[in-house]
Amino acid sequence: MADTNRGVVYQGPGKVTVEDLDYPELELAEQDGRKLEHGVILKVLATNICGSDQHMVRGRTTAPAGLTLGHEITGEVVELGRDVEFIKKGDLVSVPFNIACGRCRNCKERHTGVCENVNRARPGAAYGYVDMGGWHGGQARYAVVPYADFNLLKFPADRDTVLAKLPDLAMLSDILPTGYHGAYTAGVTTGSTVYVAGAGPVGLACATACLLLGAAVVIVGDMNTQRLEQARGFGCETIDLSRHENVPEQIEQILGVPEVDAAVDCVGFEARGHGPEGSAGEQPATVLNTLMDITRAAGGLGIPGLYVTDDPGAPEERAKAGQLGLRFGLGWAKSHYFVTGQCPVMKYNRQLMMAILYDRVSVARNVNAQAIPLDQAPEGYAEFDRGAATKYILDPHGAVGAAA
Amino acid sequence: MADTNRGVVYQGPGKVTVEDLDYPELELAEQDGRKLEHGVILKVLATNICGSDQHMVRGRTTAPAGLTLGHEITGEVVELGRDVEFIKKGDLVSVPFNIACGRCRNCKERHTGVCENVNRARPGAAYGYVDMGGWHGGQARYAVVPYADFNLLKFPADRDTVLAKLPDLAMLSDILPTGYHGAYTAGVTTGSTVYVAGAGPVGLACATACLLLGAAVVIVGDMNTQRLEQARGFGCETIDLSRHENVPEQIEQILGVPEVDAAVDCVGFEARGHGPEGSAGEQPATVLNTLMDITRAAGGLGIPGLYVTDDPGAPEERAKAGQLGLRFGLGWAKSHYFVTGQCPVMKYNRQLMMAILYDRVSVARNVNAQAIPLDQAPEGYAEFDRGAATKYILDPHGAVGAAA
Amino acid sequence: MADTNRGVVYQGPGKVTVEDLDYPELELAEQDGRKLEHGVILKVLATNICGSDQHMVRGRTTAPAGLTLGHEITGEVVELGRDVEFIKKGDLVSVPFNIACGRCRNCKERHTGVCENVNRARPGAAYGYVDMGGWHGGQARYAVVPYADFNLLKFPADRDTVLAKLPDLAMLSDILPTGYHGAYTAGVTTGSTVYVAGAGPVGLACATACLLLGAAVVIVGDMNTQRLEQARGFGCETIDLSRHENVPEQIEQILGVPEVDAAVDCVGFEARGHGPEGSAGEQPATVLNTLMDITRAAGGLGIPGLYVTDDPGAPEERAKAGQLGLRFGLGWAKSHYFVTGQCPVMKYNRQLMMAILYDRVSVARNVNAQAIPLDQAPEGYAEFDRGAATKYILDPHGAVGAAA
Amino acid sequence: MADTNRGVVYQGPGKVTVEDLDYPELELAEQDGRKLEHGVILKVLATNICGSDQHMVRGRTTAPAGLTLGHEITGEVVELGRDVEFIKKGDLVSVPFNIACGRCRNCKERHTGVCENVNRARPGAAYGYVDMGGWHGGQARYAVVPYADFNLLKFPADRDTVLAKLPDLAMLSDILPTGYHGAYTAGVTTGSTVYVAGAGPVGLACATACLLLGAAVVIVGDMNTQRLEQARGFGCETIDLSRHENVPEQIEQILGVPEVDAAVDCVGFEARGHGPEGSAGEQPATVLNTLMDITRAAGGLGIPGLYVTDDPGAPEERAKAGQLGLRFGLGWAKSHYFVTGQCPVMKYNRQLMMAILYDRVSVARNVNAQAIPLDQAPEGYAEFDRGAATKYILDPHGAVGAAA
Repeated sequence: MADTNRGVVYQGPGKVTVEDLDYPELELAEQDGRKLEHGVILKVLATNICGSDQHMVRGRTTAPAGLTLGHEITGEVVELGRDVEFIKKGDLVSVPFNIACGRCRNCKERHTGVCENVNRARPGAAYGYVDMGGWHGGQARYAVVPYADFNLLKFPADRDTVLAKLPDLAMLSDILPTGYHGAYTAGVTTGSTVYVAGAGPVGLACATACLLLGAAVVIVGDMNTQRLEQARGFGCETIDLSRHENVPEQIEQILGVPEVDAAVDCVGFEARGHGPEGSAGEQPATVLNTLMDITRAAGGLGIPGLYVTDDPGAPEERAKAGQLGLRFGLGWAKSHYFVTGQCPVMKYNRQLMMAILYDRVSVARNVNAQAIPLDQAPEGYAEFDRGAATKYILDPHGAVGAAA
Repeated sequence: MADTNRGVVYQGPGKVTVEDLDYPELELAEQDGRKLEHGVILKVLATNICGSDQHMVRGRTTAPAGLTLGHEITGEVVELGRDVEFIKKGDLVSVPFNIACGRCRNCKERHTGVCENVNRARPGAAYGYVDMGGWHGGQARYAVVPYADFNLLKFPADRDTVLAKLPDLAMLSDILPTGYHGAYTAGVTTGSTVYVAGAGPVGLACATACLLLGAAVVIVGDMNTQRLEQARGFGCETIDLSRHENVPEQIEQILGVPEVDAAVDCVGFEARGHGPEGSAGEQPATVLNTLMDITRAAGGLGIPGLYVTDDPGAPEERAKAGQLGLRFGLGWAKSHYFVTGQCPVMKYNRQLMMAILYDRVSVARNVNAQAIPLDQAPEGYAEFDRGAATKYILDPHGAVGAAA
Repeated sequence: MADTNRGVVYQGPGKVTVEDLDYPELELAEQDGRKLEHGVILKVLATNICGSDQHMVRGRTTAPAGLTLGHEITGEVVELGRDVEFIKKGDLVSVPFNIACGRCRNCKERHTGVCENVNRARPGAAYGYVDMGGWHGGQARYAVVPYADFNLLKFPADRDTVLAKLPDLAMLSDILPTGYHGAYTAGVTTGSTVYVAGAGPVGLACATACLLLGAAVVIVGDMNTQRLEQARGFGCETIDLSRHENVPEQIEQILGVPEVDAAVDCVGFEARGHGPEGSAGEQPATVLNTLMDITRAAGGLGIPGLYVTDDPGAPEERAKAGQLGLRFGLGWAKSHYFVTGQCPVMKYNRQLMMAILYDRVSVARNVNAQAIPLDQAPEGYAEFDRGAATKYILDPHGAVGAAA
Repeated sequence: MADTNRGVVYQGPGKVTVEDLDYPELELAEQDGRKLEHGVILKVLATNICGSDQHMVRGRTTAPAGLTLGHEITGEVVELGRDVEFIKKGDLVSVPFNIACGRCRNCKERHTGVCENVNRARPGAAYGYVDMGGWHGGQARYAVVPYADFNLLKFPADRDTVLAKLPDLAMLSDILPTGYHGAYTAGVTTGSTVYVAGAGPVGLACATACLLLGAAVVIVGDMNTQRLEQARGFGCETIDLSRHENVPEQIEQILGVPEVDAAVDCVGFEARGHGPEGSAGEQPATVLNTLMDITRAAGGLGIPGLYVTDDPGAPEERAKAGQLGLRFGLGWAKSHYFVTGQCPVMKYNRQLMMAILYDRVSVARNVNAQAIPLDQAPEGYAEFDRGAATKYILDPHGAVGAAA
C-alpha cells in the first residue's frame, strides 16, 4: 500500500488525462459504500484501450467527467479482502470485463454479462463504464476486483511464462473472448466460411477466433486499409468496403458463392455506410442488413458489436431512440438466428488461456498489440481514434515492456 | 383414379372459390414439367385454413389469381410414384407444410424449411403458396406430395385410432410444430414463464406447446377477447391488449415481476398497435419491440410469425421495403437472442404425433378446431378473417366429420 | 440459538438412532476447523430419508459410527455467517444435496456435483455421507449450509404457500432433480418412450420428471408390486420383474416394439437379478445390460443410480473392486451414450420449483411422501428398507404436519 | 462399362487376394435382388485399408470367405440409376462408410450410422463388412453406392484440385470423421487437454481432429514407437505404453496434473495390456478403465474404437459373450459420460472437406498415407498388420499416384 495510484480519467468529449488517484479501497462509494470484502486489490500489469471506451470519449454517451476508464485488466493480486478464500497474494490473474457476483440466477446459468447483483440500474456491470454500476476503471496502477474468487482467472503457469506471454494474456479480459463469443454464437466451427464485419481489434480478435474454431475461410470487411492488411497478415481474406459496395459480389469472387455460413458484427451502432470513407455517414443498421444479405439460409449472426438503448448523439431521429431500420424480413425468410449482447467472458477465458499458454493462438500479433506507458494513454486514445491498426496496452508498471 | 378432384382457388383480393380441378399428376408444370416419381398422390382427409393463407387472400402478397391454396394436409396414400420405396398405398400420413428434398445440405442438417432443391427462386418451398416454388395447394380432394419417403410421417396406429384423433393429428402439418418451434427456440422448458404474442391458431398452438414443454406460466396477449377466452380455457393467463397498453405492468400483476423468461411472436408483420381494435393501425415492429421489453436478460425470442422481405401493401414507406423500426439496442443490452423463420416441421412432428397418440396433448380442443365441408371453404376463410376463435379444418371426404 | 439440536445418527450396520447434538457452528471440525463464514444455519423444516442413506445403513460402505445422516434438507435461515450477502434471515430455502463452492472451474461450468473445493479426497461433497467431505448431516433440527449465497434456492413465495407445498418442495433437494437429470440426460423429451428401472422414490420421481418433460409413455420396472402400483397411479405403465424376466417382450406388449427411445437406471450397484424376489441375488450389471438391450439405436441411458468405486460387501470378487461385467459391445453396436454421476441439483432445482409452485407437477403424491416426526426416523429407515412404497419426510419442527 | 472390375477378396483367416470381379449392377443379390435405382456406379479413385478390416482378416469375426472388402471409397460417378436426380456423371465424390437411406427416423435425425432400412439384421450397414447388410466392398476398380443423392458428398472444386488433394480427401470416407467424432463427442474444444488411446490411423486422425478443434495439448498413447513418432511429428505429446504402465504419472509429467479434460478410445476390443509388447496379452477393458482413471471429473469419453456384441475369438470366457470388466463406478464417481458407436460420417464430412480444401488440416501427412496399386493390397494388409505407421490407400486407376 506504500505505492501511489494513478489512472486514466475521462474529462469530457474528446479529452482524457492521466491523473493521480486515491489508492483503491475495498468498498464502492458509488453504491453507497457497498463493502467489497470479497474483493482484492490488483497491481495492474496490463490494461488495454478498447473501442467501446471510444464511444464515451467521443461524447456519444452520458459518461460523466471524472470517470476513471478501463475494463481490460490483467494483474497481480496484492491485497485480499477478508472473505477471499481461494485467490492468494501474488497470483497473476486475468479479470473479465464483466463484473459478476457468482450467486444470482444469471451467474449460475453462466450469463455473467447480465449479473443481477452488481448494478442497481439493470443487469450487467463493467469497470470504468457509463451506466454500468459505478465501478472504477482499471486503466490505472491499482484496481479493485470484487467477488475475486469467482471473477478472477488465475494463470496456472510460473511468473516468467506469464510475463513473456503478457501481451496475449492481456487479451483474455475482453477482445479475445468477445471475438470468440461472436464467432461461436454465429455457429462458426470446423470448415465454416465466415464474414467478419469490422477490422478493429475486436474484429481481428474475432477473425483469430474463427481460425481457432477451425473455419475454412475468414473474410474481414472494413474501410481501413491498414487494418485490412493486418487481417491478411494472418490468413484472412479481406473486402475493402471503401472501394466495394457490393459485398455479395466480393464474397462470390472469394468463395464462388455469394454467401457465407456465418457472420459476425464487430462494428455496432456507430456503423458507417459503405463507400469512400466519410462519404456515406453513419448508418446504424447497415452492418446488420448486410449480414442478413450475405449469410446463407439457416445461418447465424453473432452480434458482439455494441448497440445502445438510447443514442442521443445519433444523426437521425429514430436512432436517437435506439431504433434501427432493419430488413428483418430478409433474415426471417432465410431462417436466420441472431445472438446479441456483451460476451460473458468467464464462459470462454479459461479455454482461451490454455490455447495461449500452449501456443495455439497468437492474438497479440494478430491485433498488433503495442505496449505504451500509462502516461501516454491520451496519445494512445488519439491514435486509436484515428484508426491505427493497433491495440494499445497500457503498461503501468513496465511489466509488458520488460518482457518484450 | 376414378374420383374427380376439387379444391380451393384464390381468385384475387378477398375472394376464394371452390372449383373442379384436374386429378393430380406426378409432375409439376410450374417447374417445367419436373418429374415427381419420388412422389405420391394423397386422398386428402383433412386440410386446414391457415393464418398465412390470409396474407394472400387479403391481397397483401403477389399471389396470382388461380392459385390452389392450402399447405396443411393430412391424408391417405392412394398412388405411388415409381421411386417410392417405403411408403405404401393405404398409409395414413401427415404432410409437413415445408416441401423438402431430403438430399441437400440443408435437409441433411435438419433445416427442411430452407431446402435448396425445391424452389428455384430461393431456399424453401410450400404447397399452395406464393413465391414458394409453384407447388399445388392441398385444400382439395387430392394432392401430390413429392419426395414422399422423406416428407411423409406415417401414423403408426390403426385406421380407427387415426380417424378418431384426426382433428389433433391434422395440426401436425403446421401449427402444432410451428408453435412448438417458436417455444422451443425461445428456450421454453420446465418451469419457464412465457409470453405468447397472438391468440390465433398458431398462438394457441404455441401456448399448448409451452405447456407440453413444462412451462410454469403461459401468458397470451391479443386484442380478440374470444380468442383470449379460448386460451384461458386450457390454463393460460391472458392480457387483453385492446384494454391494456402497458404489457410489463400486466405481466407484473400475474407474475410479481414485469418480465418473462421467454417470449414468442405468433403475429408477424401484420401486427397492429395495442389499444382499442383498429385505433392504432398497423405497426409492424410493435410485437418485437414489446417482446424485447418484457423478456428478461439472457432470454430468448422465438419468432415463427411471418415477416416478409417486401410488403407492397404496407402502410408506411420503410415497411414496404421490409424494413422494421426495431429497438434492437434494447435487446442487445439484455443479451437477447432471436430465432426466426419457418418451422422445419420434420424436426418435431414425430414427437408431437406421439404426444397426441398417447393423449399428452389436446391441441384440437385448445385451438377450437372445427371441421367444415370443402365447399364451405369460402365461409371458413371469411369467418376466420373476422377473427373467429376457430381453426377450420376442411373435410373433403367427410373423414373428420364421420369420426367426430 | 436458544433451541437445542437433535438428529439421526448412524450407529453401525442396521442401526440408526436419534440423539441430542450440539447446536451447529459455522466451522467444520472434520476439515481442520475450516471456517464457514459464507454459511448459514438453517432451522430444518423437512429432511427426507434417501435410498442412498440405506447403502450406509445396510453396512455396504465404510461409513463410521457416529455420522449424522441426511442430505435432503429444506429449511428456514436463522443465522447468517459474516460473508453472506444476499440470503437473509427468515428466507425459506431448498438445499441441493451436493455441496459446492461456486468458485471453482467445475462450479462455474455448472458441474456442482463435482465441486473441487469442498472435499479434500476427491471432487464432490454432500451432507452426512461417507467419503463426501465430512460435512454434517441434515436429518436434524438445525443444520449448516456453507457458501449459502450460492447453494441456497430461496422460495419466491409467501410463507403460507411454501408451507402448504412443503412435501413437494422438499423433493427439490435431491430426488426430483435427480430423477429429472436421469431423464434429461437420457434424452427424454416431448413424445419419448422411456423405460425407468426402479420404482423406489428416485424411480418414481424420474417417472414424474419424464411426464413433465412430455414423454408419451413411461414404463417403470421393479420387483416390488406396491411400488409399481404407485407408478400406475399417476399414469405409468409397469413391468413386474419378479414375474417377467423378458423385458423386451413386455415392452413390446405395451408399445408394439421391443424398444424404447431412452432409459434411466434408478437402481444402481445393488441391483438384483430379475425373477422372484431373492431368487437371483445381486447382479450389479443386470440393470445396465437390460437397458442396453431395450434401448433403441442412437438412444441414451441416464444413470443417476449410484455405482461405487469399491464395494467391499459385494457378493463377487470383481464387484468388490467396483468392476461390472457389462455387455458394452451391445451398447456400442447401437451407438448408445451413457451419462453417469450425481445430479448437479442446482442445474435444475429453480425450474422444478417453478413447476411445483405453479401446480405443474405433483411429486409428493407420486412418490407417496409421508411426514413423520424426527424421533421416528429409525422406524422410517426400517420401513423403507422393507420396501415401503413411501418417501419418508422427517419433520423436526412439525412444519410439514401442520400444513397438511 | 467397357472396363473390367477387380477387387480385394477375403479368403479366410490371414488371407486376402485380388480377384477379377463382375462389373457392378444396380441391385443387391445378397438382399434378394433389392433394386438400387437410387444408386450410382463409381470408378474408384482411392480406397483405403482400415483397421477394422483387420478384425475380419485376422479371423476374429464370422466374415465368410469370398467377401469383397473395403468401405473407404472415393471416386468418380460413371453411371446413374434411374432415380438419381442431383448427382451427375463425372462428379468426384466421397462415400461415407455407413450406408444410409436418408428416409428413416434415424437418418432424419442425423444418425446415419444406424440407418433402419439398409440391413435386415439390425440398424446400420457398411460396404464390404461382415454382418453389415451384405453390401459389396469398395476395394475394387468399380463400386456401387445406393441412395446416391443422399450418401454422396460431391467435391465443389475442379478436377485438378481434387486429384492433387486426393490423399487427404480419401480420409473423409472414414478415419477423419471417425477421429473427429471421437474427439467431438468427448467434448474436445478450444483449449482442451486430451488423451487419445491408440496411434493407428484412427488415433492419428483423431489427434489431428483434436488440434483442428483447438485442443491445447494432445497426448497419444500406444505401444508402437514408430506410430508414436508419427504423432510427435505433427505436434502431439506421446506416452510409450510399452515402457510406462502408469498413465496418470506420465500425464502429470506433461501437464502438471494427472488428468485430462477429455479422452478418446481409438483402440477398441482388441486392446492389449500395457507393458512390453505381447507380455500382457489382450485385455479388452484396459483402455476404457485407463480412460476413466485419467479423465477429470465431468469429462467425457469418446469411444469410436470398435466393441463387438460377441467375440468368439476372445481369450476369456466373458469377453466371448461381449462382456467387459469395466470399473464403471470409477467413471460414475467422476460424473463421466460415454459416447459409443460408429461415426455417422455425414454429420461431419462436408465441414472436414472444407477444412481440407482450404488447407486447414493435413490429415494424409499426419497418418502417413501411402498409395499402392490395387494388386499390392495383400502386401498392404500384411504390412499394416505388422504395425506399419502407414495408412495404405489402394489406387485402382493410378489417380493418387499420378497426382503425387
